[in-house]
Amino acid sequence: MNTYGLIMKKRNGGMLDKEEIDYLVTGYTNGTIPDYQMSAFLMAVYFQGMNHEETANLTIAMADSGERLDLSAIHGIKVDKHSTGGVGDKTSLIVGPILASLGVPVAKMSGRGLGHTGGTIDKLEGIPGFSTGISKEDFIKQVNDIGLSIVGQTANLAPADKKIYALRDVTATVDNVSLIAASIMSKKIAAGADAIVLDVKVGSGAFMKTLEDARLLAKTMVAIGEMAGRKTIAVITDMNEPLGNTVGNILEVKEAVECLKGKGEERLMAVSKTLASHMLMAAGKADDIKEAEQSVNEAVASGRAFDKLKSFVTAQGGDASYVENPDKFDKAQYTYTVTGKELFLSKEKTAAWEMAYLTSCDNQEIGLASMILGGGRQTKESEIDLTVGIILEKHLGDKITKSDIIATLYANDMDKLSEAKERFVHAYTLSDEYKFNNNIVYEVITKDN
Amino acid sequence: MNTYGLIMKKRNGGMLDKEEIDYLVTGYTNGTIPDYQMSAFLMAVYFQGMNHEETANLTIAMADSGERLDLSAIHGIKVDKHSTGGVGDKTSLIVGPILASLGVPVAKMSGRGLGHTGGTIDKLEGIPGFSTGISKEDFIKQVNDIGLSIVGQTANLAPADKKIYALRDVTATVDNVSLIAASIMSKKIAAGADAIVLDVKVGSGAFMKTLEDARLLAKTMVAIGEMAGRKTIAVITDMNEPLGNTVGNILEVKEAVECLKGKGEERLMAVSKTLASHMLMAAGKADDIKEAEQSVNEAVASGRAFDKLKSFVTAQGGDASYVENPDKFDKAQYTYTVTGKELFLSKEKTAAWEMAYLTSCDNQEIGLASMILGGGRQTKESEIDLTVGIILEKHLGDKITKSDIIATLYANDMDKLSEAKERFVHAYTLSDEYKFNNNIVYEVITKDN
Repeated sequence: MNTYGLIMKKRNGGMLDKEEIDYLVTGYTNGTIPDYQMSAFLMAVYFQGMNHEETANLTIAMADSGERLDLSAIHGIKVDKHSTGGVGDKTSLIVGPILASLGVPVAKMSGRGLGHTGGTIDKLEGIPGFSTGISKEDFIKQVNDIGLSIVGQTANLAPADKKIYALRDVTATVDNVSLIAASIMSKKIAAGADAIVLDVKVGSGAFMKTLEDARLLAKTMVAIGEMAGRKTIAVITDMNEPLGNTVGNILEVKEAVECLKGKGEERLMAVSKTLASHMLMAAGKADDIKEAEQSVNEAVASGRAFDKLKSFVTAQGGDASYVENPDKFDKAQYTYTVTGKELFLSKEKTAAWEMAYLTSCDNQEIGLASMILGGGRQTKESEIDLTVGIILEKHLGDKITKSDIIATLYANDMDKLSEAKERFVHAYTLSDEYKFNNNIVYEVITKDN
Repeated sequence: MNTYGLIMKKRNGGMLDKEEIDYLVTGYTNGTIPDYQMSAFLMAVYFQGMNHEETANLTIAMADSGERLDLSAIHGIKVDKHSTGGVGDKTSLIVGPILASLGVPVAKMSGRGLGHTGGTIDKLEGIPGFSTGISKEDFIKQVNDIGLSIVGQTANLAPADKKIYALRDVTATVDNVSLIAASIMSKKIAAGADAIVLDVKVGSGAFMKTLEDARLLAKTMVAIGEMAGRKTIAVITDMNEPLGNTVGNILEVKEAVECLKGKGEERLMAVSKTLASHMLMAAGKADDIKEAEQSVNEAVASGRAFDKLKSFVTAQGGDASYVENPDKFDKAQYTYTVTGKELFLSKEKTAAWEMAYLTSCDNQEIGLASMILGGGRQTKESEIDLTVGIILEKHLGDKITKSDIIATLYANDMDKLSEAKERFVHAYTLSDEYKFNNNIVYEVITKDN
């Protein structure tokens, strides 16, 4: 077996077997296969694709490139959750406490964000004292004690994926469904959970822009997960506008707290409850979706999920008084209020209007606005400003007038604020008639459909 | 402009402009663009192709990556010749002296061979004393004095091509017509001739296996050459069996000498005379192909071409007495005679036959047999054994009997001889009925057809 021959085989549309994929992944991870051969191989995969079997073998090879987390010391069926990423997505902070309060152990490893917002780990670090770097032993003990722990990914979790992803990122080979699916699933499988619920985002603020693409990714990941012996379910949810009312790290933590207090924004709660319900079923704690939803609603309404959040924060060294009283959180120095008038004036066609409907937005631009404010990382080395971001007062489908407040931008730098404001204002499309497709959960993909 | 964006553009089927291609070639040559991005780009080109304009811009950028040879001090229209490579191709050694004897200056830079046989430079070094490393000044002076000089490529001739070719060679991105054409033409253009005649080989011993592929490569190279302001003609010739009677470096030099003495094998002479005639026309020394062919025939028949070979050898320090008397050349230690009987016995079906026709051969296998004997380089570091090779006594279409001698193998190592013999014997296909397409020159491609 040699690398040249394997590149050629894939280039010519051939199918690689398990041994061949293992050879490539192992060789690349230990450095015997150079970057330039791997990047040529990845570009060949971009054009020729991989079938489910190849993708599953790639996933397993990457999962096995480092340490697999052994969660067997945790009692019960461990359920993990993963989102393919979107703007304002704070569902992990909501779903984790709900599940734990219902007796499902949640032992979650989470990444730092690259792009418009921080990851779950970044957000949690907005809570003073909160530590995401606890030991494996403490991690497992905490899950057994209180049912929930969220920690940063260890350096040795799927190192092959880390190395391959970094290469894809600079060689225009990121957007291939097999490579995306294998990257996500390798980490999930190495992280040791028994069941995995995937939140596949679709829309202008997501990686997958069309339902068709999202469905293909969802089906691929479900197939891989099942081949690897994990119960896997994917929920396809909307990302055509930010999820919930906030974008930005501390702002999102505060919103998650509100959600667990029963005052969550409708669409955000719909996604969170759907994910939580499927996780509950996957853990064998509910027989059908109706029963699961009822349990989830009760967990929130009773305050048990919020109580779980507090004990989770305390267990990881965080100051739970911030969760109790979110006004204590640090705030950004500047705020800027975007009015309906500014949106009207942003386009010649709408400049003279008095009222309009928000019909669509380029959600990625809203994410970029938040990143410009300092809420996300432009490069791996960037430092996140946890206090900045956006609070939305209006959503798609809403009627707005000139005097309405659309959103408030939080910033610590005037220049960044002005740049972010420009992006934000131009992200929206207005119409004089109501047209809006209010879908939030599109489809649930399991191995049987 | 950034490399990532350019990879993405090509990957998505976009067309790169001159500035973008210059950026890639310059950046890769000076090391600011890493191998792994260039290999991803090359794989994207493999799948998406390049149009003539992109290919021409790539060619020019690679030609300009090093020194362009200035041949303006040479009087007259300089005509260069290039073969895409085949088994037993010694036409440069025949064509050069013919052209020079007809008053056309031939200032040729030639590469060393990688693969089944050495290049023209390797072959010439089989003549004792012959030097291929003379200075640029001596090179130009010699062409002005006697009309012909052949030297090795300087290190600074199209260095971008050298670096890109080495990368393609290990990333399965060699066989793309635009990349092949640009690689060849960049060196030809940098080498400074006014007109270029290309010998595009087609068949089992050539890179291009089908006439369609060869025609595409020929048309691409002609288009590039003309865009770069060089009169360019391509002749598509047969490579379904070795060209002439010999394969191997000194054996080929000796055959070239025979050709210039008027005793050349028919098909080899047909190719050589066709190439020489088109070069003569390109140099403005003949008005039509008939007139050109007549001049070429006279150059050989009169002995003037052979005289030119001797003065060329002498001028570059070689001992012309070897050319005068080719028996003086070093010979390999062992010879092995392949009989018809061995060919019959090589296949179950033909084992009992008494006679047969040679209907086809895997010419690449014959080249490999010669390489195994030591006549070619397996890697850039290999040393060529100039004395080894194969002399063919039979050609495709010939009727053979058990006692006929098919070929003689020349070797300096018994193990290699036995391995090479096996390959050689199995390379042929036999039939009990005559079927053979005796084409040798298929097509002539100019900018007008």
